[in-house]
Amino acid sequence: MTKYKFSSRVPLSNDNPFGEVLTVASKPSIISFAGGLPAPELFPVAQLKAVADRIFDDDGQKVLQYSVAQGNLKLRQLIAAYMQTRGLTEDPANMLITTGSQQGLDVIAEMMIDPGDKVISERPTYLSALDVFKTYGAETLGVGMDADGMKMDELEATLKQNPDTKIVYVVPNFQNPTGNSMSLARRKRLVELADEYDFIIVEDDPYGAIRYAGEAIAPIRSLDDAGRVIYTGTFSKILAPGLRLGWASADPALIAKMTLLKQFEDVHTDNLTQCIIARYMQDYDMQAHIDQITAAYKERGAAMIQAIQDYFPAETEFTRPEGGMFIWAKLPKNIDIDQLFDECIKHDVAFVPGAPFFPDNPEVNTMRLNYSNRSVEEIKSGMKTMGTVIASLNQ
Amino acid sequence: MTKYKFSSRVPLSNDNPFGEVLTVASKPSIISFAGGLPAPELFPVAQLKAVADRIFDDDGQKVLQYSVAQGNLKLRQLIAAYMQTRGLTEDPANMLITTGSQQGLDVIAEMMIDPGDKVISERPTYLSALDVFKTYGAETLGVGMDADGMKMDELEATLKQNPDTKIVYVVPNFQNPTGNSMSLARRKRLVELADEYDFIIVEDDPYGAIRYAGEAIAPIRSLDDAGRVIYTGTFSKILAPGLRLGWASADPALIAKMTLLKQFEDVHTDNLTQCIIARYMQDYDMQAHIDQITAAYKERGAAMIQAIQDYFPAETEFTRPEGGMFIWAKLPKNIDIDQLFDECIKHDVAFVPGAPFFPDNPEVNTMRLNYSNRSVEEIKSGMKTMGTVIASLNQ
Repeated sequence: MTKYKFSSRVPLSNDNPFGEVLTVASKPSIISFAGGLPAPELFPVAQLKAVADRIFDDDGQKVLQYSVAQGNLKLRQLIAAYMQTRGLTEDPANMLITTGSQQGLDVIAEMMIDPGDKVISERPTYLSALDVFKTYGAETLGVGMDADGMKMDELEATLKQNPDTKIVYVVPNFQNPTGNSMSLARRKRLVELADEYDFIIVEDDPYGAIRYAGEAIAPIRSLDDAGRVIYTGTFSKILAPGLRLGWASADPALIAKMTLLKQFEDVHTDNLTQCIIARYMQDYDMQAHIDQITAAYKERGAAMIQAIQDYFPAETEFTRPEGGMFIWAKLPKNIDIDQLFDECIKHDVAFVPGAPFFPDNPEVNTMRLNYSNRSVEEIKSGMKTMGTVIASLNQ
Repeated sequence: MTKYKFSSRVPLSNDNPFGEVLTVASKPSIISFAGGLPAPELFPVAQLKAVADRIFDDDGQKVLQYSVAQGNLKLRQLIAAYMQTRGLTEDPANMLITTGSQQGLDVIAEMMIDPGDKVISERPTYLSALDVFKTYGAETLGVGMDADGMKMDELEATLKQNPDTKIVYVVPNFQNPTGNSMSLARRKRLVELADEYDFIIVEDDPYGAIRYAGEAIAPIRSLDDAGRVIYTGTFSKILAPGLRLGWASADPALIAKMTLLKQFEDVHTDNLTQCIIARYMQDYDMQAHIDQITAAYKERGAAMIQAIQDYFPAETEFTRPEGGMFIWAKLPKNIDIDQLFDECIKHDVAFVPGAPFFPDNPEVNTMRLNYSNRSVEEIKSGMKTMGTVIASLNQ
């Protein structure tokens, strides 16, 4: 058998514990709070079908031909108009269409990271982002967070120890996995620190549009005038993740390099999908659709909070997100989370253990609970079952 | 202004001479033989529209939801059946669906290449592949070719000088830019050399299905039993490039790593596009469609050969491809190709100068001519104009 000489960036092991959790949890009989899936019953299937028909009728040959790496200009204009409603004024020229925001992160890492370069993230954080940074050789460091997001004093201390940090990666709105958002004061402080320590802020914002309580907070990119923030957005949570479509917006000098690297990766993003989403934004009221998702998730999130209070041990700590898809819970320390996971699977209910979300120093008695993908009734019944299993282990 | 600290893999210059040629050549008044675009009038627009409708009707919610990194199983099965007709027996488990074959090349480079590693290609070759390898730090070396493809004696000599070569990259069928194919004897020899010098062969095959003369030659991957060949395929030339969909097939140990790296890059390939192409392959006769393209390109290729004979200087050397989309021509040495390009643009006709296709030692009196994207009449008239311009410079 051939012994392959892989590059140093390839993980030696094919193990994927997080993926295995999701696979186990995907059994149809299981009420799963494990994944990060939007509610499929809210996808605007009929509208997207109508839009696809119109595109094939009006522009079939053009849509099926090669296009440009930076992405469809009309789509970039529509995203710019949408981002205006989210508090960010952006020139469509400063935008790159990506094959989902994951590709945005990949291209940013490729552009910025040499082996040994340092990337700081929230602790816990979205681990697939750190996987990407590590693939390009980054050393990753975690900074603690609370209900107001990443702690800026702890970040500053970490920067003092690591003044050569290249990127600080944050999910400022309804963060994955905690559901917490970064306050305006901390966003401003983060931009100041970026100037002082000369790093790039990656503002990853998949969930920000889904706010059902509190006031919107200005995007970090809108607070910066030195071109230090790269914003990544996606249609995965507000429209449909099966359509792989996202965007990055940043200083033109960065977008120029990112466009080149994106072109090397996949020439350009699927043209049919770009045209479908552009036409959907033109022909329909996307904000009304987002409002509908937001109303449903508000109800589901409230049901999950209520269920934690009703069925989980009184000592359980948990976050109270103002939007997004996730709640983060900290159980009494005597509960073995891996054992709890196995027992829950036996009782047809699932969650994700929290440890894999930590770039370092994992807190093993934590869990992430997703509420977007299940009905209020399923949330009540699944959480009740989970409460019973926790009680049986909490002796 | 912020001075960005890019990684060492980012090109310092944003210059893109090849891209500039294509931009200049894309002016509507120009008869362009410059790009590598398929004939849009042959895209099966009505069938793809019908298929999209059926998918939204039958599976709308599922198609719009997240999917798996390796790609739709049904699609992989259909591709395996198709590749059987092309002479390659492949288990769908040994396949990865990619966002176009360019992403396949990117993932292969990411998997194999550490800075300083060597990649050998044909000289001339498809330069965007070399761009990808270089992005991961590869040193690229060219090996000469003739009408039977890469010269194996020259390859062996290069391997002796560079025994640590990691990848030999070839386009064995109707190569871009020359249109030439690698003979069966050379394919077998290449596999022997891979065993002897312990390298991976990347068999990039975008054009192989479009054969209008001669006999099909066995895929290199079908000649190897040591798992040393990674085959990359695409629907760009046989169906539609705007749908970014390709695949890689290789030893399962390689596919496992590639799937992980692909997941880091864009989670999975657009699910709607995967389902559209799978359903198209199920509901329609894709081979009949390929036959239609092949017949049209045969006629266009013949018209271009005839026009070279009619209008270009008698000393012009040119290839006689048995399929694909390109002819390679070598003009008398006294002609300055860059000047010729500028003059041709003034006369509303375009081609691509050959020099950028060379990984090293460019031959400056060469050009690539594409015949797939223009009618026979346009080919005759554009080539006649070009012949007049050449004559005016060939004093």
